[in-house]
Amino acid sequence: MIFPRYVKMVEVGPRDGLQNESQMLPASVKIDFINRLSDTGLSVIEATSFVSPQKIPQLADQREVFAGIQQKPGVQYPVLVPNRRGLDNALAVGVNDIAVFTSPSQQFNQHNIQCSVEESLERIAQVMVVAEQHKLRVRGYISCVLGCPYEGDMAPEKVAVLAEHLLKLGCYEISLGDTIGVGTPLRVVALLRQVTAKIPLEKVAVHFHDTYGQALVNIYAALENGVAVIDSAVAGLGGCPYATGASGNVASEDVLYLLNGLGIETRVDFKKLLAVGRFISQVLGKKPQSKVNQACVLN
Amino acid sequence: MIFPRYVKMVEVGPRDGLQNESQMLPASVKIDFINRLSDTGLSVIEATSFVSPQKIPQLADQREVFAGIQQKPGVQYPVLVPNRRGLDNALAVGVNDIAVFTSPSQQFNQHNIQCSVEESLERIAQVMVVAEQHKLRVRGYISCVLGCPYEGDMAPEKVAVLAEHLLKLGCYEISLGDTIGVGTPLRVVALLRQVTAKIPLEKVAVHFHDTYGQALVNIYAALENGVAVIDSAVAGLGGCPYATGASGNVASEDVLYLLNGLGIETRVDFKKLLAVGRFISQVLGKKPQSKVNQACVLN
Repeated sequence: MIFPRYVKMVEVGPRDGLQNESQMLPASVKIDFINRLSDTGLSVIEATSFVSPQKIPQLADQREVFAGIQQKPGVQYPVLVPNRRGLDNALAVGVNDIAVFTSPSQQFNQHNIQCSVEESLERIAQVMVVAEQHKLRVRGYISCVLGCPYEGDMAPEKVAVLAEHLLKLGCYEISLGDTIGVGTPLRVVALLRQVTAKIPLEKVAVHFHDTYGQALVNIYAALENGVAVIDSAVAGLGGCPYATGASGNVASEDVLYLLNGLGIETRVDFKKLLAVGRFISQVLGKKPQSKVNQACVLN
Repeated sequence: MIFPRYVKMVEVGPRDGLQNESQMLPASVKIDFINRLSDTGLSVIEATSFVSPQKIPQLADQREVFAGIQQKPGVQYPVLVPNRRGLDNALAVGVNDIAVFTSPSQQFNQHNIQCSVEESLERIAQVMVVAEQHKLRVRGYISCVLGCPYEGDMAPEKVAVLAEHLLKLGCYEISLGDTIGVGTPLRVVALLRQVTAKIPLEKVAVHFHDTYGQALVNIYAALENGVAVIDSAVAGLGGCPYATGASGNVASEDVLYLLNGLGIETRVDFKKLLAVGRFISQVLGKKPQSKVNQACVLN
């Protein structure tokens, strides 16, 4: 087994997590949440999403939240941007980092952003032009890389082509999302082979949901194959509105426990991360969806 | 990655699972539970434990349960036996398979069975003599192989010596138990190296609890190292009375989902296993502690 020495943990709790929690939180709590995350040593914290407030009411306070956080030097606070309008709104509050997204599934794109794969790439291209003018860093998400709720299994080749396209458009990193959590390691490895045939391994991130309990084992398989960027959400926040089951993102605490056990450096403070997981869970009135946090809470 | 072609799943729900559930179930329900498990294709189902009813009241109906199940040809129904007295009681109801247990931790043994490691091996030796006379198959459990609630980390060498000892005493298989669920893959692999230096790989089983969410990733690491026998409990029943956190055994459904995804044969019917997990969870009045079962229930 050859693992990366250092793994960059990308915390997506405030965005991918909270957008899929049924409960609405006040902006002040979200700001507090992000500030606490900043204090854990995390270097990337996805802060919010500049999608339409009608579409995702949970993040309708996107401007207030982004403007309110205390940005820690050296920490990136990307925001999700679906189109040119979202970008303009994000620029108005002074973002430096954005994330764009698409999927190889025509039907998922239609349901999610009401356009085809090709149209979504055009939208992204428009965003990239302006992003470049403003010297923004742009991350690319690909959703449903291992399965789609409408189209079933995804061909790894399609994902690889999309990853290459996004990289050529100017993304610095491509996050491969198993949005409905159906993947198992053989498929993860097969996907990584195809993707890394098209783009450099160091540009690849993985983003797993734990719907079928396979997130950590998939992360492990990705680590064995050299992937060194992992998305997760503290307390396992969120879920996917299109996926059955109650599970959200893989819990950052459980990922960090694994990485620590493997001797992989992250620069994230374990105890502080647990404390943030407990904080946000308490606010939401539920127990952390992190086994590590559940086990440690009771100590 | 070279995985075993076939994995033997050892279902420990009726014993390790139910003995750690706070709720008492009537014998008739346990019998029904085991009979349903027999119908899934599982080849080994740990039925109950012949420990003192005072110690584990949940399994005080051990004789009634064992006598009541419909034994399916080709399926083993081992029972846990702590000492000669337990063995006599087990023989009285006609068992063919037993399991003995010890731990490399002096303090765990003292708390669990009120004797030293050496004394526990003497008790096991006494059991083995009678077991041989009755031509019983004997499985050996080693608890706390990666960590002990009293002594902390366990030296892999100690576990390996114990495994060799149990094999020499006549056990056909040694199940390595991470009783408190603290292990991560590097330690699992280090342990397996030490153990398989002393006993053949095909005699090794792994038994993980999911207290820190690492059970499946540890199983994956074990599979990569050729282990082909995996203990689990349907619906993730149980827990360990000495471990903090709410988590029990790794859920059989989640293990099977992984094995199916890896193309490993088990001869266990996925849908039937899910149905048994739902059955026992309903009886216990809780939702299955299996992500796969939670996800599929909602479909």
